[in-house]
Order: sequence, then structure tokens, then C-alpha cells
Amino acid sequence: MTQSAATTEVTRAAAAIAECRLIADMSEELGRTTRRFLTSPVAQVHAHLRRRMEALGMSVTVDAAGNLRGLWQPTSTPRQRLSGRLILGSHTDTVPDAGAFDGVLGVVLALQLVESAQSESLAFGIEVIAFSEEEGVRFGVPFLGSRAVAGRFDPALLALRDADGVSMDEAIRNFGLNPGELDNATAGEAIGFFEIHIEQGPVLEAEGLALGVVTGIVGQTRCEITFSGQANHAGTTPMHLRQDALAAAAEWITAVEATARQHAQSSVDPGLVATVGKMNIEPNAGNVIPGKVRVSLDLRSERDSVREAAVEELLDRARSIAERRRISCEIRRQMEQPSVPMDEQLTSLLSDAVEASGFPARRMPSGAGHDAMVMATRIPSAMLFLRSPGGVSHHPAETVLEDDVEAAIKAGELFLRRVNDHLRIQTN
Amino acid sequence: MTQSAATTEVTRAAAAIAECRLIADMSEELGRTTRRFLTSPVAQVHAHLRRRMEALGMSVTVDAAGNLRGLWQPTSTPRQRLSGRLILGSHTDTVPDAGAFDGVLGVVLALQLVESAQSESLAFGIEVIAFSEEEGVRFGVPFLGSRAVAGRFDPALLALRDADGVSMDEAIRNFGLNPGELDNATAGEAIGFFEIHIEQGPVLEAEGLALGVVTGIVGQTRCEITFSGQANHAGTTPMHLRQDALAAAAEWITAVEATARQHAQSSVDPGLVATVGKMNIEPNAGNVIPGKVRVSLDLRSERDSVREAAVEELLDRARSIAERRRISCEIRRQMEQPSVPMDEQLTSLLSDAVEASGFPARRMPSGAGHDAMVMATRIPSAMLFLRSPGGVSHHPAETVLEDDVEAAIKAGELFLRRVNDHLRIQTN
Repeated sequence: MTQSAATTEVTRAAAAIAECRLIADMSEELGRTTRRFLTSPVAQVHAHLRRRMEALGMSVTVDAAGNLRGLWQPTSTPRQRLSGRLILGSHTDTVPDAGAFDGVLGVVLALQLVESAQSESLAFGIEVIAFSEEEGVRFGVPFLGSRAVAGRFDPALLALRDADGVSMDEAIRNFGLNPGELDNATAGEAIGFFEIHIEQGPVLEAEGLALGVVTGIVGQTRCEITFSGQANHAGTTPMHLRQDALAAAAEWITAVEATARQHAQSSVDPGLVATVGKMNIEPNAGNVIPGKVRVSLDLRSERDSVREAAVEELLDRARSIAERRRISCEIRRQMEQPSVPMDEQLTSLLSDAVEASGFPARRMPSGAGHDAMVMATRIPSAMLFLRSPGGVSHHPAETVLEDDVEAAIKAGELFLRRVNDHLRIQTN
Repeated sequence: MTQSAATTEVTRAAAAIAECRLIADMSEELGRTTRRFLTSPVAQVHAHLRRRMEALGMSVTVDAAGNLRGLWQPTSTPRQRLSGRLILGSHTDTVPDAGAFDGVLGVVLALQLVESAQSESLAFGIEVIAFSEEEGVRFGVPFLGSRAVAGRFDPALLALRDADGVSMDEAIRNFGLNPGELDNATAGEAIGFFEIHIEQGPVLEAEGLALGVVTGIVGQTRCEITFSGQANHAGTTPMHLRQDALAAAAEWITAVEATARQHAQSSVDPGLVATVGKMNIEPNAGNVIPGKVRVSLDLRSERDSVREAAVEELLDRARSIAERRRISCEIRRQMEQPSVPMDEQLTSLLSDAVEASGFPARRMPSGAGHDAMVMATRIPSAMLFLRSPGGVSHHPAETVLEDDVEAAIKAGELFLRRVNDHLRIQTN
């Protein structure tokens, strides 16, 4: 065969994937993608995105929380007919040793949508926000970027210190920004917020689907249960005289799984998940009956009342298991976070857009938190999921399928048109 | 009230308890009892016991394994009518931060029995052995003293090193002994071996009994089971797509307990005990589904066939739980130790003696290893348990009741008489 001289046409999806991989190389570590809040590679990302935004005719700023923000105003629409702006975006920070798509893909696709919008006669502007922080890695608190935009940034956070002893206040100043201007980061009125993000779960893949329409971010309860029995000799203590804390914990873990599975098979909340992920056993020796076992519970549901009832049922169960076994059971509640529904109107328009692109609009809750969860507290929000091959995320093997990215762009374009049509109906 | 001038008569039991507490102060650590194999306080213990033995007219030696051995020969019995000797004893080493009675009580009561025997016309001598090592603390291998006496001391053990890098060979030499003479420690022919020991368990106390007649030392299986599923996000992975290694382990731990309880309620082997005491969870984070969980199994029974069948049943159960959950299950067998029955004849004489002392002869297996287990491989052995208040042992709170000690001395005396009568019948 002779070498082909033909140029390959690069699809928009392939270009977006390539751009994500390019940004993944902007890292604190050589050979791995790690990009924490306002570390030096963030400046590289900003420089890259600023060039891209300016090429698209956007005006670019960085707010005091480190969010890079580009505003595009349609030039073909008379200014008096403009109805404000729609915010698009996601985050650019990563976990340590991350993949290339968690967050960044949503920013890159937002720019693709601005490019598509150039040839449309939209009645609104588009602000693309590359949120500075979502993962909570550097200061242990997530959503720093979207908190600032949503006007929910607590100044007390500025005193937090990272692993090197640098305070958040110092980190912001070292990046050339002024923490005193954080209030100015708060978004004014907007039509809505739209985030595209990889699913980071196995649902879409298991069902052979490219896209998912997020109905809301699940609410979450976290608590810690400590079973205290009596440590004793594994050889000399007969079964009927034991107060085995691990046997109690095991019985309870089995009940946690069974309860969550019952929900998953019911119509009440098939999306409910319950997990015991952490466990501490004392004294943890093969020939000693465990005297004390501490277990975690993480229970999530899109329906707060269902979550609260399930948690109470499981905690009652822990108490009754302990009582029957003549051991004690101590419960510590650690987190009680209500669910955040996406905006019904926008989500409905997004579903229509997905179907009009030729894909089933699989409605699903998000089991993880996202910037859209924080943004939704201030601005009507919608969110689109892309299939995560293997359900893999927060790992270098994280990936996306080119066809799915193309589907997301297509659905995004149709979503923007539908939002435009909707505004026209409302204002006429 | 005026202070009483009357002297209090100290019972034999109170004297024995006081002697145990005196020996407990001979320790490597100030304020705690810790006495490992051939450490310096052992020389103090030997000096004390040697004085006691010599006062009883015994001839005293220390063998190459560090066992202190005193031989008493009845003077009132013509030498040609002597039928050899009965060995009494237990160990004098301790675990770190030990109680005062585990081991030592058996040595102190052996000396009490020699004292009682002075006024009897026994047809045999009595050798009291204060075994140098039973707990396995210093070199990680237990029963060093009784191994040597039973002729089961593997010279390869001499190369083992303690936490300070001192080899066992050096430890023996540093104590003024010669490892080259270990073979000479092996006991010649003997009528039997008799050990008195605290139960170190809650059975006698739960039944309101002072004494137990040990029928045998249980056999023991130890293994390690690793369940490997898939670590995943606790929020984004629905219940039906999980491969939760901890949920599998919990189901299995529940089965282990249920199986052992079934046995405990049956007549096949009510003494069977099964324990999961150790567990390792990866990654052990509250918001991550556990991907890998390793658990220990310790299963003990006096009946080897019952133990083996129960182990196979539980390992099959682990495999089927893993298979149903589409995860893997790896089994590593770590220990397979057959049970060691006590000598039927001697145990029967001991039961008679206990009943003749006015106590029920509660026959029970020992769930823990003892010197009698090793001695039984060479010499017919019997063992008497004393109630452990609170089931507490290997702890400074370890104690004994004075009445129980008195009961043990009484039963021991009657046991010696019965052995004597039995020998007379045999030789006549």
C-alpha cells in the first residue's frame, strides 16, 4: 500500500476528546493528571481556554474564586430583543491521578455549543464558566467555584489550609486574585444553567444508552454505627456466651443491602442506594472475638422522605440487632443532605432535545454531587450525562465514546434551540 | 472497737493465691506482669521455686530448655514397691501485662500436692515441672518447655530470633544452659502428667461450677478467605450492578455464626466454636463500595471429623456466596491441628476425685492449647480446670476464687490417692 495523501476529516467529537486529553497533560504531576484548586497548571488551562474563548469572540474574565468566565453575545440579534444569558459549564479541577473527562468535557463541549450558536439567531447570550473547584481535594471542601457563582461561598472557608499549610486566602492571592472580591463572583439573573458531564456510573452502559437526562442530585445521609460487645478468647468462649460485635455488624450489613435491594425492585425509589464502605474492627486478631466494630452508612435517594424513612428503618434495625445480642449500639449522624431537583421546565426541554437527536431520553438521578447541584440553588438548572464506559471514573482509564460525545453535542444544540423557542413563546 | 490480737489462720488456698501474686511481681516490667521465656525475672522465679522444692525435700534441676524440675520420692514406701513417678506442673512464662494465675497456679498447686503427699504412703514419686515457655510470646512459637520434655523439640527452632534479634540458641546460653543438651530434657517413662489450670473462659462461671475435668484439647482450623469484587462509587452504582465484597463477607460471617450455633444446640458437638476475628477492607472509605475483603476463620472442635466437615461446609458456602454475587473467592488454609484427647483412664480417676471432693465433675474440652496437649503426645495426661471469674484471662484483672482453689487442692489430693489405688490394683 502507498501512504495516503488524503487528509482525515476530524469530527467535532474527536476534536473535543483531543482537547480534553491536551488539557489532561496540564498537571501538577508528570505522567499523571492531578490538578487541584488554583495550582500552577490551572494557569495553563486558563491560558488555553482564554485563547479558545477569545477566538470565539467571547469576553473573558477570571473571578475571585478562580472561575474562568467567557461571555458570548449573539451579534445577529438586536440588543433590545436579548433575554439575558444561559450559563454553560463544568469544572476544570481533578482528583489525584484522574481521567481526562470528569469536568473538563463539560467545559470543552460548552465551547463547541458556543461555536454552533454562532450560526443561530439566539435571543440570549451564553456564559461559559470553567469552575475552578468541584472535587474538594485541596481544602477538603468541594464546589468552591460554583459556591461563589451561586452566592453561597462562606468566607470562613478562606481560613482552611491545604496539606502544605497554605490557607485558601493565600492560595487565591498567590494566583493573583483578591478574596475581598468574592462577592462579585455571584451570578446575576440568568435563564438557566446547563452542565454536560460523564455519568461516572454504570447505568447508561448497562442499558446500552449514550445519554441520560439528570432529574436531580440525590440526597445523602451519612452516619457511623458502633457495635460494642465483649472481646474474648475465640477458643474458650462458647457460642451462647459471646457478645460478638462483628457478628452483629455482619447481620446489620446484610440487612442494609437487603433493604436497599427491596427499594431497587420497587417503584417507590428504584434509585436508592445504601453502602457500608468503611469498617473498623477491634482488636482485629484471628483468635479473638471482636469486641468493638464501627461501620459507616452512606444512603442516597432522590426522594428525601424515602431516604429518611430508609435510614430510620436501618438504624432501628441496628438497635434491635444489638439489643437481641445484649451488646450496645451507638449512632453518630454525620451528614444529612437533601436532594436537589433539576428545573422541571429545562429538564423537559432537554429530554425533548435528546429525543429529537434520535436517542432515548433516559431520565435518571445523579448519585454524585455536581456543580449543577450548587447552581440549582440560585438558577434553574439542567444536566446531561454521557455514558461512562466500564463505569470508570476518577482513574486514568476514564474514557468516553466518540459517538456519545457527538450525540451530546447534537442534543446540546437542539436544547439551545428549544430554550430559544421557549423564550420566544414566553416573551411574545 | 479494739484491734483484735488474734492471728488469722491462713488457708492453703489463700497461701497459694498469695504465692501466685508474689511470683507475679517477678516481672520484666515495673507494675505489670510480663515474663517471657528465659528473661531475667525467670531466674528469680527459679530461685523462689527451688527454695520451696528443697524445703519439701525435692531434688531440683533445670533442663536445657529452662524447665525447673523437682523430684520428690516417698520415703515411707520401700524403693522396690515404687512404680515410677507422676509428673505435675504447668508453665511460668506469661503474656505481656498478664494476670497472676495463668500457668503459675498449676505449679504452686503442684507443690501443695507434694506437701500433702508427704503424709500419704504413695507408691510413686512426684516430679513437678515448672515449664519455661507456653505462651509463644518471645519467639512466636509456643510450648517450648513441654516440647522439650515430650521429646518434640525441633532443633531448627534454635535459630528463631526475638524482637531484639537474640536467637533462641543465644537466649538459652545467656541463661547459663546448653542447647546441646536439649535431648536430655526428654522425660523417661512416667505414670502420667497432671496439670491444674484456670479455665480462661466463661463456661464454669456461667454454670456456677468450681471445677472442670478436661476431656481433651480441641482441634483447630485457621484459614483466610478473600472476597474480590469491584470497588465502585457508592452514589453512582445502582444496587443491581454492584459487586460488593463486604456485603459478600457479611453474608458469610452471618453463616459462620449460624452454623456454629446450630452445632452448639445439637448433641453432635456442642463445644464447637467458629470465629471471624480479623478483617481487612479495601479501600475502606465510606463512599466507596468495598472491592476486596479478607476475613479470618478460626474453627475449633474436640471432634476432628466434625471440625473438618464444618470447615468444608463453610468454605463451600463462601464459594457459593461469591459465585451468586459474581465475585471471586480465594481460600488460604493456614493451620490444621488435630484435637488431643486426654487419657481416658486418668480422666476417669480425676472425675471420681472431683466428685468425691463434693463437686460435680463437669467434663469439658479445652478451647485453648496447654502444656498437657503437648505432654499427652508422650505421657498419659489429665487436666483440671478452675473457674475463671468473669472469664477473664491474659489481663491483670485475671483472678481465682479462694474456695475454688481449695476445691482444686482437695480434688488433686483425692486424684493422687486414686492413682495410687489404681496402681496397687494393677500391680497386685
